[in-house]
Amino acid sequence: MTIYSAPTQESWFVLRHVIGIDAHSRLPGYEQMDEGSVTAVLEGVGRMVADVLAPLNRAGDVQGCTRHPDGSVSTPDGFRDAWTQWVEAGWPTLEGDPAYGGMGLPKVIATAAAEYVLSANQSFETYTGLTAAAIAAIEASAPDDIKALYLPRMVEGIWSGTMNLTEPHCGTDLGLLRTRAEPIGDGRYAVTGTKIFITGGEQDLTENIVHLVLARLPDAPPGVRGISLFLVPKFLPDDAGEPGARNAVSCGSVEHKMGLRGSATCAMDYDGATGWLLGEPHKGLAAMFVMMNAARLAVGLQGVAQAEVAFQNARAYALERRQGRAGRGTPDPAAPADLLIAHPDVRRMLMEAKAYTEGLRALCLWCAHLVDVSHGDPDVDERAAAEGTLALLTPVIKAFASDKGFETTINCQQIWGGHGYISENGMDQFVRDARIAMIYEGANGVQAMDLVGRKLGAGQGRPFARYLEDISGLVEGCRDHPVLADIAMPLGASVERLADTATWLAQAGTDNPDDAGAGATAFLHLLGTVALGAIWLRMARAATRLTASDGYSQAWLDAKVETARFYAARMLPETLALAAKVRAGSASVMAIPANLI
Amino acid sequence: MTIYSAPTQESWFVLRHVIGIDAHSRLPGYEQMDEGSVTAVLEGVGRMVADVLAPLNRAGDVQGCTRHPDGSVSTPDGFRDAWTQWVEAGWPTLEGDPAYGGMGLPKVIATAAAEYVLSANQSFETYTGLTAAAIAAIEASAPDDIKALYLPRMVEGIWSGTMNLTEPHCGTDLGLLRTRAEPIGDGRYAVTGTKIFITGGEQDLTENIVHLVLARLPDAPPGVRGISLFLVPKFLPDDAGEPGARNAVSCGSVEHKMGLRGSATCAMDYDGATGWLLGEPHKGLAAMFVMMNAARLAVGLQGVAQAEVAFQNARAYALERRQGRAGRGTPDPAAPADLLIAHPDVRRMLMEAKAYTEGLRALCLWCAHLVDVSHGDPDVDERAAAEGTLALLTPVIKAFASDKGFETTINCQQIWGGHGYISENGMDQFVRDARIAMIYEGANGVQAMDLVGRKLGAGQGRPFARYLEDISGLVEGCRDHPVLADIAMPLGASVERLADTATWLAQAGTDNPDDAGAGATAFLHLLGTVALGAIWLRMARAATRLTASDGYSQAWLDAKVETARFYAARMLPETLALAAKVRAGSASVMAIPANLI
Repeated sequence: MTIYSAPTQESWFVLRHVIGIDAHSRLPGYEQMDEGSVTAVLEGVGRMVADVLAPLNRAGDVQGCTRHPDGSVSTPDGFRDAWTQWVEAGWPTLEGDPAYGGMGLPKVIATAAAEYVLSANQSFETYTGLTAAAIAAIEASAPDDIKALYLPRMVEGIWSGTMNLTEPHCGTDLGLLRTRAEPIGDGRYAVTGTKIFITGGEQDLTENIVHLVLARLPDAPPGVRGISLFLVPKFLPDDAGEPGARNAVSCGSVEHKMGLRGSATCAMDYDGATGWLLGEPHKGLAAMFVMMNAARLAVGLQGVAQAEVAFQNARAYALERRQGRAGRGTPDPAAPADLLIAHPDVRRMLMEAKAYTEGLRALCLWCAHLVDVSHGDPDVDERAAAEGTLALLTPVIKAFASDKGFETTINCQQIWGGHGYISENGMDQFVRDARIAMIYEGANGVQAMDLVGRKLGAGQGRPFARYLEDISGLVEGCRDHPVLADIAMPLGASVERLADTATWLAQAGTDNPDDAGAGATAFLHLLGTVALGAIWLRMARAATRLTASDGYSQAWLDAKVETARFYAARMLPETLALAAKVRAGSASVMAIPANLI
Repeated sequence: MTIYSAPTQESWFVLRHVIGIDAHSRLPGYEQMDEGSVTAVLEGVGRMVADVLAPLNRAGDVQGCTRHPDGSVSTPDGFRDAWTQWVEAGWPTLEGDPAYGGMGLPKVIATAAAEYVLSANQSFETYTGLTAAAIAAIEASAPDDIKALYLPRMVEGIWSGTMNLTEPHCGTDLGLLRTRAEPIGDGRYAVTGTKIFITGGEQDLTENIVHLVLARLPDAPPGVRGISLFLVPKFLPDDAGEPGARNAVSCGSVEHKMGLRGSATCAMDYDGATGWLLGEPHKGLAAMFVMMNAARLAVGLQGVAQAEVAFQNARAYALERRQGRAGRGTPDPAAPADLLIAHPDVRRMLMEAKAYTEGLRALCLWCAHLVDVSHGDPDVDERAAAEGTLALLTPVIKAFASDKGFETTINCQQIWGGHGYISENGMDQFVRDARIAMIYEGANGVQAMDLVGRKLGAGQGRPFARYLEDISGLVEGCRDHPVLADIAMPLGASVERLADTATWLAQAGTDNPDDAGAGATAFLHLLGTVALGAIWLRMARAATRLTASDGYSQAWLDAKVETARFYAARMLPETLALAAKVRAGSASVMAIPANLI
């Protein structure tokens, strides 16, 4: 039996004291973001996920989803009731546009809340998360009548959304996709093809399912420039907008997976299904990327969320289980053995978990705030700057947070020893569920290629240069601080190392693209390690500016500073190895003939 | 459907050209180790594991083991037939003492063969592997009549062995164990208590199961100095030595685990079961450690084996699946997309997998050779030197090979993209099966404590110093070599870094034991990274000394050198970060009060 309690105090600390949401009242929704309102939302979501969703997590893993002979799919027992409660509580509507019945809360608040849902039950969250992504794509590219018909129901949570990109022969390389769409008049299209790995492609939670499908028009040019986006509902809405005739789309099978088993991963057959074009012909990939970018940030958040729940359970175990005597004297001489947490190597693992979890949460929330700025800041330059930083960091968040989140679940499972390998104890599910985040929404290697191939040089490299300047400025401001200096100094060295490595990479990658490819993953981790160092320095600085009178105990504030110090001393040195790996180039990577590797 | 083919050429290259088994004919069993004999064994085992065991691997994972109401346990369908074939082929007897019906082959050959069994079906191997470990403990500590009764049947494989250490409240800390043994006359004891995580505690493969059980005698002092080792058979042998009356030991439950599901992990209840003391009273832990050390090397080998089979499947997929265009030009312009293996980031993952798998195999085989030397060298100094190196490297092999083996399975699963997360494709089982090796036989953190707390300083630090000298000598010998220089140079820098870090650790750990504990895992990885670098330099040197006339193609030999170069350029830089982590000390690890972590 695992435990979970939503870390609302941690979220609030980041929102208020690191991001400073109170200083952004110019942004839509931020004006109402006082402590009382935010806390009410966070604690409300936190309570429901702990009470309703967390208890279904392991049972859902054991039972999984079932496809019946008629093609219908059952989610695990309890999911349907939980969905009803979730919708009745209004939580799906958090970030929805008020024009369609949403609460209109900022992305940054919705993101803080989404983390809790993911920690409590990642499988359950996939249904809501992909609906939110589909809403974003429809908002961005659908004509008004489709918005008016679909969005209110999707925002409310009685209809859901899916993303249909992958086909059996193509995942990363969407240029190869074969699903076709033929005009049948009346602005409608007949969509035919097979899609795989469709999360929530079929389920028993919602009255209708709105599939967003990439397909080719008859006159489409080959490759990615010939892909269009279509909306294909499971049930065609009738004149009243209610689910009417069944569309020619069905679930052919449900996958058996390593984890995320409460989430129905479906193979979907489109057999001349009726669809509507979203956006312009052949521009479907751009329209889908609205969805993809939001989804990539959400996937990074999955890493944070699984790390958090694994960390909570590892910490609890280390505070309860006694084994052996710790290194320095005997903390607990009257007991037969010391607590695990007294052992330095166990503490090391816990501190790594804490440093990654809290740091990555702050980074994800900060990026969610950048989404709010990029959409809603009245100043066009601010919007553009936020968009540039966000584009740069999106692959980093997706890949680095999912890699480190997974690594953290492994460390936390390790603290449980043999008991961590026993399924009943739940640690193994955190590992298995966390694993998918490194793969879907663009495998992490693809994120790394996106970073070095497109994002680093975007805008003549200005967003990247500006990001480095921001961190250097932060370092300068803390370099002489009595408490923060020994956090700032190694960060300063690391950001210089990052800058030098980027310069090397830009030159080398121009001479030989293989150098960029061979160093891409190491470079992404280098940037991620520095980004996390920077956010930790921000958190430590915020903690030094607060006192017990601000609602935090002094010991809690000191712990923030100490964790930043741990990160600087223990994690920033990884930049040494990562920089060296990038600079090793591609020669030894590409040397061996393919058939002899 | 996964593939597996035993890498006999790789094994033979290491045995003959890196270890040089032909130069050790003074060792028992080595005199018959010509190419024909060794190849016959390796290929024979390789064929049977590929034909019989590999096809059962996934089915065993899906079905798992079942405990029936009468306490009996079924292994997965097919395991029993496979066991019969295995015994009939004589493979269990490979390294057995000829006095008890064994073939008497060297440990190094048995280890090469065990890797194949583990790759094909790790669950199946646990039954044979623990039997081998139990045989070693009985040989080392049992009186002659017990040896004569039990060993022939265990060597043949018709009886199996188990290790019973863990209890619900104690795993790492065996000083806490409560199982008791009371003398009942006639040299017999009544053993009472509960043991958990007993691999093969009950199964349907063998006629009898020989449990080796740690328990306390009535007059036992508390802690680890009061533990004795008992032999407790499932069936008490009758006068003819056949399984007779059922003993009072039974299986209370079989665990549901993350992986290794074909291996029955049992909770065992001893209810006054009849047992015999092995070795001296209160010296059971020393007797069990004979078993533990062999088992730790075997667990390291599990990391190699899962890495190898995952690597084979990732490579095959990368040579078949086409996605996107690779960085440098278009390797395959006529095809709709390039093979995955053309992409530098995919190649990077494959090269890491290759470097770790082949390097760790060589390290494991070299340590197995040291076992042979330490047992059988006529020169007492050679025996002692081998024993010292072996003691030093045992925790490194166990922890580093299992950590890197697991990491490799993850990388290989990643190459499969979303298809790697689908259970039917088998990549996920490699990950889940590999995970346990980091936990059992002493969690990897415990190995790290063993290394820095005991092994580094053992023998006044001479084994460690001698090991470093060996590597430095190797580096010196290759420093001016036209091909090997750029492999030797970074290794030279890394071994100096290791030596400096060890000096720092010895001093700091004396002043504050927490520094040793906080740096233990990073130090173990530092030593492991250098050890692998050294074995890669040895492999590269061996490859430069061979030509196509020795039975290897020049391209194959060149690939060995290139992989060594890849390791030196890409993996040795990790020593920079690891050394810095050790030197960061324990201050930031221990700073935060336990309740605020």
